[in-house]
Amino acid sequence: MKTHTLLMPLDMHLHLRDGLMLDTVAPLSAYTYSGAIVMPNLVPPVETLEDVKAYKQRIMAAVPNDFFEPYMTLFYKNYDKAFLKSVADHIIAIKLYPAGITTNSEGGVASFNIGEMRETLQTMSDLGIPLCVHGETDGFVMDREAEFMSIYELLATSFPKLKIIMEHITTKAAVEMLDKHENLYATITAHHLILTLDDVVGGMMKPHLFCKPIAKRPEDLDALLTVALEAHPKVMFGSDSAPHPKEKKESCGCAAGVFTAPISLQLLCEIFEQYDKLHNLQAFVSDNAQNIYGICAEFKEVTLEKRPFVVPETYGFVVPMYAGEIIAWAIESVD
Amino acid sequence: MKTHTLLMPLDMHLHLRDGLMLDTVAPLSAYTYSGAIVMPNLVPPVETLEDVKAYKQRIMAAVPNDFFEPYMTLFYKNYDKAFLKSVADHIIAIKLYPAGITTNSEGGVASFNIGEMRETLQTMSDLGIPLCVHGETDGFVMDREAEFMSIYELLATSFPKLKIIMEHITTKAAVEMLDKHENLYATITAHHLILTLDDVVGGMMKPHLFCKPIAKRPEDLDALLTVALEAHPKVMFGSDSAPHPKEKKESCGCAAGVFTAPISLQLLCEIFEQYDKLHNLQAFVSDNAQNIYGICAEFKEVTLEKRPFVVPETYGFVVPMYAGEIIAWAIESVD
Repeated sequence: MKTHTLLMPLDMHLHLRDGLMLDTVAPLSAYTYSGAIVMPNLVPPVETLEDVKAYKQRIMAAVPNDFFEPYMTLFYKNYDKAFLKSVADHIIAIKLYPAGITTNSEGGVASFNIGEMRETLQTMSDLGIPLCVHGETDGFVMDREAEFMSIYELLATSFPKLKIIMEHITTKAAVEMLDKHENLYATITAHHLILTLDDVVGGMMKPHLFCKPIAKRPEDLDALLTVALEAHPKVMFGSDSAPHPKEKKESCGCAAGVFTAPISLQLLCEIFEQYDKLHNLQAFVSDNAQNIYGICAEFKEVTLEKRPFVVPETYGFVVPMYAGEIIAWAIESVD
Repeated sequence: MKTHTLLMPLDMHLHLRDGLMLDTVAPLSAYTYSGAIVMPNLVPPVETLEDVKAYKQRIMAAVPNDFFEPYMTLFYKNYDKAFLKSVADHIIAIKLYPAGITTNSEGGVASFNIGEMRETLQTMSDLGIPLCVHGETDGFVMDREAEFMSIYELLATSFPKLKIIMEHITTKAAVEMLDKHENLYATITAHHLILTLDDVVGGMMKPHLFCKPIAKRPEDLDALLTVALEAHPKVMFGSDSAPHPKEKKESCGCAAGVFTAPISLQLLCEIFEQYDKLHNLQAFVSDNAQNIYGICAEFKEVTLEKRPFVVPETYGFVVPMYAGEIIAWAIESVD
């Protein structure tokens, strides 16, 4: 049977939440990933050194028997130099949310005033702390990411040494930015390499495929596939796996987020094999990230096998993408 | 208190369904409308004279005490001349669905072969039977209606005396067709004068605002508002009120359709007043339709009052648009 082995897979954009949800989902990521960048949009957000340390402890307690490194982030606010110096060794990046743009982002940035942000961003640049950005305006849902490109340009040119990660990109417009500014990078999810808006609302309405940024047009999907499949060196895998309780996804006014953590490596194998690019998956899912962030991931060897895998209906109280459906690859072993 | 009176309101595109659903929703339309064009997409579809007569009887039985004319339609197939002559006096139009494009449309037209359709469409033209069309391709969800414009052009130029109604239009592209071909007309819903895709999936995912065709972009909304508010003489109100049981709307894989029948006149007053165009609502909601179809509607005088109206959470087992929310106009009296 066909197999494919990945070394040190990394999920460079992950929501682990807290409490019972953390205990439910963290072991699933820890099983197959060497490490993951953990998003700070808790309630309240992670914004002090104590928050970072305590959240990291809770994560480690949720995955006691696995080798798994949670790379911690702070929720972006304007922080002073002294604070940033004190926290630099404990975080891998700072995550910026425009205010109110997605789940638990109410305390985010309301306006991009470079003057007000300068101390924080220049200090981050000096200390080598990357800035991860949820790049959407509050405009029309299909235009939000493309409209944000001018803000990426402003940030990239104002702080040319600051590494800026365009998180979970979904558009051709964002792909085109990668080669325009040396200090712009991107993460791409598994589901945005599969879905367009058609899958979300083209037939029936599918709450478990509803996320922010929403899946876009066919030409956007093509652009994302192009850079992911070639493992463009500025592009990394970040699942943006975003669990919500089943009842929150399946009620009127369903919350945004696709839960892919336990099936993302399988999906990636399926996608990359379909385009005959399995040989580039290692770079997309680990090597690029290690180069970009300058990290050395914990050893883990994951072997996947090409055989039908029926995705469970739920993991605990969370419904995954493709629940009950069959995908073409399964986890064979983890060492 | 401000009031506004409408004479003989007509809903030129309505789904009444059958059985218990028919009994639930038909009285709601019959209360405020003089008549409505009733869609034929039952299971199985309405496609014989007996079907038409029997369905009309069931509708009349569901609204025993109201003056209400159900204008009957046939489900488009290729029919022969003799059949069309026999049924002409019993229907107001024939409704064409591309196969599989929306609820119960599986038996629709699979390919637009004018040769094969000629006998039917030419006979309809000769007999003065309008063709109502659900104009969507099976393309990307945001492009389906715009892509259908070439088929409208083909139909309009091949049968220049056939009245063709572009049903529930949602795009600037369709609005622009109105003045290009003399024999093209359109219906517009109330919800497509309010919603864009933003309302459906821009914040939370809203199943009760999910319909086909899906609400489009802001510039499309603007184009629809322009022709509706001026009561362009080729444009008519058609609610496309499309009830589904609550559990079918609020489950994973929610069915398409917005239920507006009992609140549509109130919504229209709110919209037209907001743009200071209440004086054009009579034409949009009745006069244009009577001119286009050459019908003389049953007398009905509906007076609306500008006062807060709390939309019920449900009508029977159906959830209306804006359930539990407040709209600015209410029905004051019906004579």
